[in-house]
Amino acid sequence: MRGSVPERASANAGLDGVVAGRSALTWVGGETSDLVYRGYDVRALVPGVPYESVVHLLLFGEPPESDPSPVVAGALRGARPVAAGVRAAADALAPSLPPLEAMRTHLSLLGGGDWSYPPRREEGYRLIAQSPVLLARHFRRATGRPPVEARDDLGHVANYLWMLTGEAPAPARVEALEAYFDLLADHGMNASTFVLRIVISTHSDLGSAATAALATLKGPLHGGAPSRVLEMLREIGTPDRAEGWIHERLARGELLYGFGHRAYKSEDPRGLSLHAIARSVADPSRLRLAETVEREGLAALRAAHPGARIYANVEFYSAVVLDAIGLPPELFTPTFALARTAGWTAHALEQAAENRLIRPDVEYTGPPKGLRWPRAKPGP
Amino acid sequence: MRGSVPERASANAGLDGVVAGRSALTWVGGETSDLVYRGYDVRALVPGVPYESVVHLLLFGEPPESDPSPVVAGALRGARPVAAGVRAAADALAPSLPPLEAMRTHLSLLGGGDWSYPPRREEGYRLIAQSPVLLARHFRRATGRPPVEARDDLGHVANYLWMLTGEAPAPARVEALEAYFDLLADHGMNASTFVLRIVISTHSDLGSAATAALATLKGPLHGGAPSRVLEMLREIGTPDRAEGWIHERLARGELLYGFGHRAYKSEDPRGLSLHAIARSVADPSRLRLAETVEREGLAALRAAHPGARIYANVEFYSAVVLDAIGLPPELFTPTFALARTAGWTAHALEQAAENRLIRPDVEYTGPPKGLRWPRAKPGP
Repeated sequence: MRGSVPERASANAGLDGVVAGRSALTWVGGETSDLVYRGYDVRALVPGVPYESVVHLLLFGEPPESDPSPVVAGALRGARPVAAGVRAAADALAPSLPPLEAMRTHLSLLGGGDWSYPPRREEGYRLIAQSPVLLARHFRRATGRPPVEARDDLGHVANYLWMLTGEAPAPARVEALEAYFDLLADHGMNASTFVLRIVISTHSDLGSAATAALATLKGPLHGGAPSRVLEMLREIGTPDRAEGWIHERLARGELLYGFGHRAYKSEDPRGLSLHAIARSVADPSRLRLAETVEREGLAALRAAHPGARIYANVEFYSAVVLDAIGLPPELFTPTFALARTAGWTAHALEQAAENRLIRPDVEYTGPPKGLRWPRAKPGP
Repeated sequence: MRGSVPERASANAGLDGVVAGRSALTWVGGETSDLVYRGYDVRALVPGVPYESVVHLLLFGEPPESDPSPVVAGALRGARPVAAGVRAAADALAPSLPPLEAMRTHLSLLGGGDWSYPPRREEGYRLIAQSPVLLARHFRRATGRPPVEARDDLGHVANYLWMLTGEAPAPARVEALEAYFDLLADHGMNASTFVLRIVISTHSDLGSAATAALATLKGPLHGGAPSRVLEMLREIGTPDRAEGWIHERLARGELLYGFGHRAYKSEDPRGLSLHAIARSVADPSRLRLAETVEREGLAALRAAHPGARIYANVEFYSAVVLDAIGLPPELFTPTFALARTAGWTAHALEQAAENRLIRPDVEYTGPPKGLRWPRAKPGP
């Protein structure tokens, strides 16, 4: 995700339009507001299709026999217990460490070095199942509360809310968060997935690759901005203040978070679905504020960049939905990452199945060869 | 680095020949055995130019006033103390964790979340200075010994050997390892550096980017193989067994580590320098074994791939030199990474100075849009 002010570009430096590989996982139809997992329109999956079934679709190539996928649900249940050594190392992190920082270390710790090449589906289950356990554990420590063990009678998404709060989550919240997980489970060759595939391409492992992917997702131009959308909404406060606030901010040359996306030249389909979900879970006054900011933000950005096809991106209504579910802003990007562990696993398996080391060239712009180190010894 | 058996390729999947950006740092002359840092031939820098001065060249664009760079030496000394919280978290890792696994977590821990965007040179000093402290500390724990504090009277490379062993390192070993650090300090747009630049391109931070880079370097097709070269040499044992061993291995379709490189279609200049250094530090019988394996390996690979321009790569004589210095094989790739922290820092600064989000496209090869989820609710 990026803001509204374009950055200075140099030839190919963003790899815009460069086709860096093939994938059967996700089609991003940026001109037509399409997002399709293996032929299935994601907007038709939400709300209602459990995350376990989306994981099944991504990892096996087809829907399960029944929902939620019994295969994936059972595998995640079995993979959920975290090894004692990993738990001990995670518990040694400062509780004050931001959850996103903690999560990068969690992913690096996961598996205790026990990963293979090529990556295996079972390793993906470990990644998908244990990441929320460690994240919730850290969040509980940060807020001075004991950890909550997962429940075998809850699905993956409900368990995450349960482990965070220790309270049986309301069905409407589970449905909304499940839809969020479904919608964010994969998204083609974005920056973090590209990084994951490069890491796998060196015959490194899924744990390393997921750590690297999270390091990438952390950047506010990618996945690190939804909490900034919420900050912006809170700062604006009421719909009548939106127009003035936005104009002042743009006049200062600052970014407006939650708008614009490299791939979409039309509405982000995930944003459309999340907007619909927000209508059912968000407080009406907060929803009205968000809708006003969206409208005024688009008007201002389109006026500033005539002809540019700018839309709200997925982070805009992500922030509204995650806030309505009750997640604190510091968990927004970590929660995005939890949803994406499914896509990361699927991309790792796909990359390894037809691998070639990903290593581009670079144009050297430094001085030509021939400078002499001032104090070099005479050559042999 | 990769082995000798080519992998199956698909269009552009390795980004071969795609120019993914500009850099004034390093020119890799793959046809002419050249490696040049900002105009300076690296082969003319070793042995003799201290690593601090190479860091200076990479970070400031020119050689320092005197060697070792007083600016960099002072900055590294000042940046070396590790925060208590980071040290405590690092000490909670299982001592049995392989050093490379531990190091990925160290990099994720470094700085305790206190990183900025754009990255700053001072953050690079922290990365360069503290990585060997934590690595040596882990190695000492793994071998049941107390940590050794750095000494202000030793340079960066000598300090690393000191912290590992607790013994004043012999000058010949320091000179050899210093040359290794100089030669490995940067190498253009390799896979880990490319990953680092993608991470920075999302406006993430240097700590995250270095963690991701190490996750990439870990792969045996990139930096994870030098210990396998040593294993191979040990398994072969004596020069007379080299030819037979190599032929058997290739006949089984297995990789021969230490040969071939995507960028070099001639001798790897670093390998030439390391070979020269090996002549001065390695045990003569081990050197003779290595030279025989190199000769027989090349003969066998060239016979198997007529016309292919195959040479020993940097890992081949890296393994010989690092072994001669007394480093155990499990520290080979971590030591490579320590040397590369200079290049990673320089690339991070360069990427941020003229940033554009790196996000390529992908060719979708899955089913077309239109499949219906078997149990989907009827649409609105």
